[in-house]
Amino acid sequence: MEGNDGDLLYLDDIQVGQKFGSANYTVDEAQIKAFASQFDPQPFHLDDHAARDTLFGGLAASGWHTAAITMRLIVTSSARFAGGIIGAGCEISWPIPTRPGDVLSVESEVLSVSASRSRSELGIVTIRNKTHNQVGEVVQVMTAKLVVSRRPVASAKS
Amino acid sequence: MEGNDGDLLYLDDIQVGQKFGSANYTVDEAQIKAFASQFDPQPFHLDDHAARDTLFGGLAASGWHTAAITMRLIVTSSARFAGGIIGAGCEISWPIPTRPGDVLSVESEVLSVSASRSRSELGIVTIRNKTHNQVGEVVQVMTAKLVVSRRPVASAKS
Repeated sequence: MEGNDGDLLYLDDIQVGQKFGSANYTVDEAQIKAFASQFDPQPFHLDDHAARDTLFGGLAASGWHTAAITMRLIVTSSARFAGGIIGAGCEISWPIPTRPGDVLSVESEVLSVSASRSRSELGIVTIRNKTHNQVGEVVQVMTAKLVVSRRPVASAKS
Repeated sequence: MEGNDGDLLYLDDIQVGQKFGSANYTVDEAQIKAFASQFDPQPFHLDDHAARDTLFGGLAASGWHTAAITMRLIVTSSARFAGGIIGAGCEISWPIPTRPGDVLSVESEVLSVSASRSRSELGIVTIRNKTHNQVGEVVQVMTAKLVVSRRPVASAKS
């Protein structure tokens, strides 16, 4: 794939400490219940009344919904990595739940950059993505290992 | 909440080494594209043709889709923990992608069980959930820390 890379970032362009922001995403009650019905059908994600007697004390989004929204924000409005945002794995914690009406945004910071030992055209970027709500509370911390392309070497084509 | 606990598992019932299976879940191309459109809109999750020239070599489910399906299988057909399946955090890796037509199932194993230091009614169970496809390949390993209720002490109510 050649052509206009625009502002695509290759491994060679990425530095430890680099930060990226995102757009906002508003989560409503209907979305929380729809996601939960499909993937995490538990009372505290489906029914506000039933949620009151649980550890959550009220309707809360599935952590996997928070993770999926975070991914959407990263893919659509954060760093544009060459080859896409491809995770090999990650660590996630959910300090507090996402609630109906929350407005989420993601702040990402590069923690490490390394070339692949086995594949010279690839590398691994470790990036910490903090998902905040509208009052600045952190609802999710996700530290991901991403597979990122190195900038193609022109002479490799001749 | 009292009443018939059925086969609900409390922290006190859970042992290191305990294993749980799940039902099966068939993933089709339409589901892969629908999830990706909403949460991970990248070419390799949306379009088989575009996916051929990427690291995936063909249409692949978003890792977050695999995670969400895994959660559904755990919640609907695996261990029934008292208080529900509530994750404080987890580690995930995706050794290979989920593909259209894959039939996924989850095999879970308890790695550790500990009482909470700060809240006597709760504990933490660390559980490794391996998601397999229909030929036994592991598409995801998710090691989660779950918040699990201790069995209520009858005398606490008198």
